[in-house]
Amino acid sequence: MTKKVQEILSYYRNENPGTQTNLYRLLNHGTLAGTGKLVILPVDQGFEHGPARSFASNPGGYDPHYHFQLAIDAGCNAYAAPLGFLEAGAAEFAGQIPLILKLNNHDSMVSEKDPISSQTGSVGDALRLGCVGVGYTIYPGSSQILDMYEQLREIAEEAKAHGLVVVVWSYPRGSGLSKEGETAIDIVAYAAQIAAQLGAHLIKVKLPCQHIEQSAAKKVYEAEKIPISTAAERVKHVVQSAFNGRRIVIFSGGAKGDDGNFFNDVRAINEGGGFGSIIGRNSFQRSKPEALKFLKTVMGIYSGQQS
Amino acid sequence: MTKKVQEILSYYRNENPGTQTNLYRLLNHGTLAGTGKLVILPVDQGFEHGPARSFASNPGGYDPHYHFQLAIDAGCNAYAAPLGFLEAGAAEFAGQIPLILKLNNHDSMVSEKDPISSQTGSVGDALRLGCVGVGYTIYPGSSQILDMYEQLREIAEEAKAHGLVVVVWSYPRGSGLSKEGETAIDIVAYAAQIAAQLGAHLIKVKLPCQHIEQSAAKKVYEAEKIPISTAAERVKHVVQSAFNGRRIVIFSGGAKGDDGNFFNDVRAINEGGGFGSIIGRNSFQRSKPEALKFLKTVMGIYSGQQS
Amino acid sequence: MTKKVQEILSYYRNENPGTQTNLYRLLNHGTLAGTGKLVILPVDQGFEHGPARSFASNPGGYDPHYHFQLAIDAGCNAYAAPLGFLEAGAAEFAGQIPLILKLNNHDSMVSEKDPISSQTGSVGDALRLGCVGVGYTIYPGSSQILDMYEQLREIAEEAKAHGLVVVVWSYPRGSGLSKEGETAIDIVAYAAQIAAQLGAHLIKVKLPCQHIEQSAAKKVYEAEKIPISTAAERVKHVVQSAFNGRRIVIFSGGAKGDDGNFFNDVRAINEGGGFGSIIGRNSFQRSKPEALKFLKTVMGIYSGQQS
Amino acid sequence: MTKKVQEILSYYRNENPGTQTNLYRLLNHGTLAGTGKLVILPVDQGFEHGPARSFASNPGGYDPHYHFQLAIDAGCNAYAAPLGFLEAGAAEFAGQIPLILKLNNHDSMVSEKDPISSQTGSVGDALRLGCVGVGYTIYPGSSQILDMYEQLREIAEEAKAHGLVVVVWSYPRGSGLSKEGETAIDIVAYAAQIAAQLGAHLIKVKLPCQHIEQSAAKKVYEAEKIPISTAAERVKHVVQSAFNGRRIVIFSGGAKGDDGNFFNDVRAINEGGGFGSIIGRNSFQRSKPEALKFLKTVMGIYSGQQS
Amino acid sequence: MTKKVQEILSYYRNENPGTQTNLYRLLNHGTLAGTGKLVILPVDQGFEHGPARSFASNPGGYDPHYHFQLAIDAGCNAYAAPLGFLEAGAAEFAGQIPLILKLNNHDSMVSEKDPISSQTGSVGDALRLGCVGVGYTIYPGSSQILDMYEQLREIAEEAKAHGLVVVVWSYPRGSGLSKEGETAIDIVAYAAQIAAQLGAHLIKVKLPCQHIEQSAAKKVYEAEKIPISTAAERVKHVVQSAFNGRRIVIFSGGAKGDDGNFFNDVRAINEGGGFGSIIGRNSFQRSKPEALKFLKTVMGIYSGQQS
Repeated sequence: MTKKVQEILSYYRNENPGTQTNLYRLLNHGTLAGTGKLVILPVDQGFEHGPARSFASNPGGYDPHYHFQLAIDAGCNAYAAPLGFLEAGAAEFAGQIPLILKLNNHDSMVSEKDPISSQTGSVGDALRLGCVGVGYTIYPGSSQILDMYEQLREIAEEAKAHGLVVVVWSYPRGSGLSKEGETAIDIVAYAAQIAAQLGAHLIKVKLPCQHIEQSAAKKVYEAEKIPISTAAERVKHVVQSAFNGRRIVIFSGGAKGDDGNFFNDVRAINEGGGFGSIIGRNSFQRSKPEALKFLKTVMGIYSGQQS
Repeated sequence: MTKKVQEILSYYRNENPGTQTNLYRLLNHGTLAGTGKLVILPVDQGFEHGPARSFASNPGGYDPHYHFQLAIDAGCNAYAAPLGFLEAGAAEFAGQIPLILKLNNHDSMVSEKDPISSQTGSVGDALRLGCVGVGYTIYPGSSQILDMYEQLREIAEEAKAHGLVVVVWSYPRGSGLSKEGETAIDIVAYAAQIAAQLGAHLIKVKLPCQHIEQSAAKKVYEAEKIPISTAAERVKHVVQSAFNGRRIVIFSGGAKGDDGNFFNDVRAINEGGGFGSIIGRNSFQRSKPEALKFLKTVMGIYSGQQS
Repeated sequence: MTKKVQEILSYYRNENPGTQTNLYRLLNHGTLAGTGKLVILPVDQGFEHGPARSFASNPGGYDPHYHFQLAIDAGCNAYAAPLGFLEAGAAEFAGQIPLILKLNNHDSMVSEKDPISSQTGSVGDALRLGCVGVGYTIYPGSSQILDMYEQLREIAEEAKAHGLVVVVWSYPRGSGLSKEGETAIDIVAYAAQIAAQLGAHLIKVKLPCQHIEQSAAKKVYEAEKIPISTAAERVKHVVQSAFNGRRIVIFSGGAKGDDGNFFNDVRAINEGGGFGSIIGRNSFQRSKPEALKFLKTVMGIYSGQQS
Repeated sequence: MTKKVQEILSYYRNENPGTQTNLYRLLNHGTLAGTGKLVILPVDQGFEHGPARSFASNPGGYDPHYHFQLAIDAGCNAYAAPLGFLEAGAAEFAGQIPLILKLNNHDSMVSEKDPISSQTGSVGDALRLGCVGVGYTIYPGSSQILDMYEQLREIAEEAKAHGLVVVVWSYPRGSGLSKEGETAIDIVAYAAQIAAQLGAHLIKVKLPCQHIEQSAAKKVYEAEKIPISTAAERVKHVVQSAFNGRRIVIFSGGAKGDDGNFFNDVRAINEGGGFGSIIGRNSFQRSKPEALKFLKTVMGIYSGQQS
Repeated sequence: MTKKVQEILSYYRNENPGTQTNLYRLLNHGTLAGTGKLVILPVDQGFEHGPARSFASNPGGYDPHYHFQLAIDAGCNAYAAPLGFLEAGAAEFAGQIPLILKLNNHDSMVSEKDPISSQTGSVGDALRLGCVGVGYTIYPGSSQILDMYEQLREIAEEAKAHGLVVVVWSYPRGSGLSKEGETAIDIVAYAAQIAAQLGAHLIKVKLPCQHIEQSAAKKVYEAEKIPISTAAERVKHVVQSAFNGRRIVIFSGGAKGDDGNFFNDVRAINEGGGFGSIIGRNSFQRSKPEALKFLKTVMGIYSGQQS
């Protein structure tokens, strides 16, 4: 065990050895094993956006086995997906890549101002599929957030008792926020704090912008001169907001765009002390050789082998 | 065991042998045994549309025994119905035809924009009645869809633990969709994907039309030039959307109409790689001799013995 | 055991011997024992309409013992009532008359467009009170019907496992229907079908009128020329709609009115193949001697000893 | 309800109406209905003594249906048997004769000085088979008696909560007693008392002889000049010992012997205030016509229509 | 469904349709499908006698797949084995042969005078492995028999509620019996009776010899002149002792010996009305071609195609 992993695990000393064992597995798998950094492949877009929007540009992705193999070949730390995708390959790829069962999901046939996902898997499913952890999405800012907090609480309690890692996707959204506010620095930091307070072991947020959404917060940011002008500073602030670095925070990549910008974001995450990235569409919506090359670059930045 | 059945069962390797055994039973019963194709008789219209609309045109169908016998005589792979219809004949016809207990139902006295069915049977009922599986309907597009996903999740987890097959009727409907959108190709493909992600073993959808409902999807279909101009191409796309053919997808026949058109649809399903048909009203709303002849033609197309 | 009772019991072969035993008790008690016909006394009006509206016209009825004795003296097949009424006399009259515990009830202090009853007794109550079965009311047509279906489902599964009979009062009502529609022939037939599909052993509906509520149904009734012009024809259609006579369907008498009309209704039920009547207000809202005479006439019609 | 039945039921006022209902059913079935006397057919000898010893003399008895029909045709109050015998006919004879499920049994392949039976059925079995009660054998005098008391306690508590009657076969036997002591008057009276104290509703003992087993008891019988010289006096004493007649005590007939003696015993039971007989081997080990004649005589004595 | 199967299923009318379905599957599989006769392959000798004693003579049998394939190729009605053997092949052979999970087992490292097996599988295991039933061994004659009866009772109640078949191996053994007594005609008949009384659907006993073990029984056999001099007569008596033919009784073949004698035994079982054989060592302790030929002869005798 590297010093870095030892240090990170020390943040979770209160958890039972089962959960620590699964955290260890996450941190010691793939290209970034032992570095304390993580790159995770998530594929829940089939459920969230529909199959053609998700997979038509690289039709191999219609096949659930594709993503297991991609995560393995790219040297990701883990692969995260909803029940059906994991069921369809968990036996064939058993043991080859740490799995995270995404426990709630949301489709895009009904669009509502205040979103909520529904539970589509259980802790029992995660155990029978051999997962290291479970994932759950919350939408702070939605008027339905209380139901999400309560469902997550129950799931997290059960997951921890069974030695699993709890991963929370914390995505501000809903009538409580402006569109720009969804990635406002105060709001993303707040979302990270909430996920940590809810007992998440691993927190996924979006890379924040410089906007400050809440006037009460704005006063403080200005009074205290919190540095948020660069992406790296903002990452540092978000990591600080997740228990001063005592919780693993990783950042999502968003829709496919310019690769150069993406790598700059990764450099900022790394520089700001972020723990890594969770990269879905940028991974599986291009051909496999391109995806492997792309992910190799990302991991190179995190491992310090590429500037 | 034929190669074809062996291949299909291999898609479900993660499931316990009990569920695989019941899948085998479905795939190895009746005229199409061993071909990898299925024709299932579903009779839930008495609950869904009322008795006269369902059975008056062929009054034998008021009697629950009629449908057991029809499914047996026609060589169907299975018979699916709500609790009462199965209770009324399960002892008399024990073992003669694989049974699927339809676990939720919906009547048409109250019409709502956003439909939801209610649970009318349980996994325990399915076991005491000797069923190979349970069926559940979801209405993606309904504002009440989250409750359906969560109820299905619980039922599916319990059913799988007891070795049963989970069949999902995925019927887009509700305020999130236009009327035409209910059978739009993007929506039907999406509905198949969702059912698969929810852990369905066998998915029933409607035969899609060429319409594309969602603008975000439309862009992709056009950009990627996904072929959807013929029925067979659309079937192929739906099957691809259900884990690239790794989940059994069958198509429902809809209301009684022109037989020639129906057989053309069956040919398209077959050509497009669909796994078969679930044919209710077209089976039991005509005289039994006609129904047997009709189903024989359908099965002939699927088995390749009739062009 | 008479041939008739033997035949009726054969419809319930899937049930355990306990439930069959209690069905036997219902069919073999009182004046109509062995005929396959039933007259049941239900007294839930105290809860449904309040005490004065229910009992002031014949104040003996305020006393729960009155109704036990009336059912016994009149030779009814069973007495059905809510928890309190049964608790208040079940010990004193133990064994003298088959009892049905009405498991849900509804008061008339709050009037809602879409009614739902609440559970006021349990299967455990029915067992400790020595009942042969439990009763449950559903209101198809109410927007709250889904909750009723689900509650009935749970109760029915538990009741059957413990050897009890499940009686369903299926009363169309609510915003999905016009006032006339509540007794429309298509709707009453539909209500009988739904109760049967939900697993009811004994179904209680209102005597239908000639009105057809649903336009989709109207087309079928006219196209198929379903005879519904006489009360007997309508009864026949309802019985057919309850699994072609494989489920016991009895008809409720409604409010007190002209006795001659009532007896004509009974003659129609008998002629149409109905299994009997459930007669509340017409029984207990007149003096006991008159009630006995009235019920004697009804039973005479059903037994064929009175035309 | 006769005065006699009313009086007997009044002894059980503490029980819930369900148990009272089933006691009523026992007391109001068959030839002796309403007399307060009972003749019950028990057939557990196949288990206790083996099939040939039980049924070879009248081979019809190998068939479980035979005993149901015998109990019905003879006008017995009830039929008692182990699980298998009841399962094999409970559906076919549903409702035609009150059933008592014998919940523990003992075979005679191993002979032990201190016998104990094992549980071979449950309260749940009794409910699903439509029984009015459960039966349980205890062997006071056996060194294993504490286990029997405790198992009976649990069963009785559950049975009563579900409205069933608890019948206890109280047969002194074991190292604590001499052979003669098994039917000693002090011991049989003691066995009746114990069964009553354990909460039995109906107690079955052997007809006692004049022997007094326990010296401490002997002193009292002599000091108090308790009359025990005739069989009728002994019956009276046993009935007194079962809560002064407040618990139903019936007497077993033992092995087939001289019919005249048997009828004299019945007369003594009747004269002494016993509640009836439980007659197995004397019923089913002779041809059916003879059995019917024999049981008719017994019932004639109890009903007072035969001296 | 053949008349014969229909008749046999009618003996189990009290069971739920699930159990009837699994009985149907047993009776309708393999070479003897529909004849009402069964040949079952049991392989629990690895546990009972150790691997070398069981499999060294035909080393293919060390491999669990061997036995699945043997049962399939030979056209057996079912394959019965302990947990491990079924787990090791249930997925690969899913659906191809009805499975019976042997729920208790006994090794031969400790030899006790009064044997008892221990539970090594559960009803839940049977469901997840896709079995049609569960098997359980009792040793009447052992001083530990009471514990076996009670464990079987619990298992059987749970199995039946879940729609499974209950198979009982009833093997007299223990300090209550002489060695010869283990196959004495009175004892084997008694063992069949006990299994039936315990609620077994299918009973397995050894082919009895002419010896009579119990003196009390001997008197009856002689007095009633029960014919037991030929093997066929003894089979007939055992079948009669299992509810007069209302329970399926099959006979075990015992250790490998002279094939001619074995076939004569099969002829006697057939002639005496036995329902078939359960043949372990004689099947798998010879080469597969020989085993297939051997079993073909056995099935030929049962089907009447070979004298």
